[in-house]
Amino acid sequence: MTYCCAMRLQDGMVFISDTRTNAGVDHISVFRKLYTFGVSNERFIVIQTSGNLATTQAVIGHLQNQLELKLEPNLYSLNTMFEVAELVGHTLRKVIADVTSDTVEQSNYFCSLLVGGQIGSAEMQLYNIYPQGNFIAATPDTPFFQIGESKYGKPILDRALKYDMPLHDALRCSLISFDSTLRSNVSVGMPLDALVYQKDTLRVPVGKRIYEEDSYFSVISKQWSETLKRGLQTMPEPTEDYFN
Amino acid sequence: MTYCCAMRLQDGMVFISDTRTNAGVDHISVFRKLYTFGVSNERFIVIQTSGNLATTQAVIGHLQNQLELKLEPNLYSLNTMFEVAELVGHTLRKVIADVTSDTVEQSNYFCSLLVGGQIGSAEMQLYNIYPQGNFIAATPDTPFFQIGESKYGKPILDRALKYDMPLHDALRCSLISFDSTLRSNVSVGMPLDALVYQKDTLRVPVGKRIYEEDSYFSVISKQWSETLKRGLQTMPEPTEDYFN
Repeated sequence: MTYCCAMRLQDGMVFISDTRTNAGVDHISVFRKLYTFGVSNERFIVIQTSGNLATTQAVIGHLQNQLELKLEPNLYSLNTMFEVAELVGHTLRKVIADVTSDTVEQSNYFCSLLVGGQIGSAEMQLYNIYPQGNFIAATPDTPFFQIGESKYGKPILDRALKYDMPLHDALRCSLISFDSTLRSNVSVGMPLDALVYQKDTLRVPVGKRIYEEDSYFSVISKQWSETLKRGLQTMPEPTEDYFN
Repeated sequence: MTYCCAMRLQDGMVFISDTRTNAGVDHISVFRKLYTFGVSNERFIVIQTSGNLATTQAVIGHLQNQLELKLEPNLYSLNTMFEVAELVGHTLRKVIADVTSDTVEQSNYFCSLLVGGQIGSAEMQLYNIYPQGNFIAATPDTPFFQIGESKYGKPILDRALKYDMPLHDALRCSLISFDSTLRSNVSVGMPLDALVYQKDTLRVPVGKRIYEEDSYFSVISKQWSETLKRGLQTMPEPTEDYFN
């Protein structure tokens, strides 16, 4: 399985992906699911992937190949993030159709993608691209998308994430979302790839690979457990009618 | 959808079910999914249901009918909770097979059940009954089961629920698990049915129906949001390398 989360906020964007893939519980591997592209002072693009690994690698492969051979259109020739999302969606649809034209069988090769970034002076954009190649965009009302094993980590985002939140807070919020998911589902696993993009910088951040022994993540994880346990104990006692 | 949670702990058992059913988003209804059976000073049985509503109602209908007509075996004639789980499982399998013998089509009529209780001086038991009629039992290592939309509410249980926890704490923990689920999935809805059974009392608790305006649940829900938000703010600031 996979868990990827991306946020488009007032001050920038936050992206985190896990790296665990599995073809059965006895075939676990580490594969990067967060890819960056960019041209300094011009454009910054992130793609996160979830689903069939051959499909996701083929999509990224085609996009990189276009850049390498300077085939048009490519991620660096397009003028807007909308066009980037369209290119990625078309590429995804084509990759799946190349494997099989049987639409029922195609679902075995499905993947979902998150595409975020900023080009020139235009606004940052974040798109959730479906296996069919169509997509939706994040907005201030719905500033985050998740793909893969999204449910365990959603409650904290639903409660705490706000569009006008500082990036530091949003990062902590998303790390907690990941910690909850890691604990509840072994098919989502460390290391994590995290990336914070500050609005209008138009540079590709190096990002951080978070390993199990990462001291900050360990502190967050431990302290959050304490917060929940203590929070639970400070809740008022249930009223008597709950015990009738 | 549905969310049901049941716990078998050192001091007793906690059961909570939602009541929302939907056949499409424009066809929402309220149906009870927590059923109690019992004979004072002899036995206490709870059944919680998730899945196809006609199937779950047929299972409960058959079990009630057996009691009414004193057909053997029935929930009050069996000697152990294991036998109760077997009867419920057989009944479930038969109800589904009565609709269709096509094993692929049968999945449209699937439901899952939680069966818990205590008979005489034997230990309390909690079983998770699969659509195929077979089942697993809760243990001190794994003291809770969930059926239906279980993922949003699982992180708090994974972190905080312990077998030797007082029932008051376990109840709070499960109410928070429900609150998280209600917020993240509109197909799980109020009112909730909650029941706390104290070990060896061998009486059927009245239980409590928790409506939207329930003052205790509202306090829990609001205070929990505050706990999370405040907890998030007191986390240490991310180290600089997260922003590279």
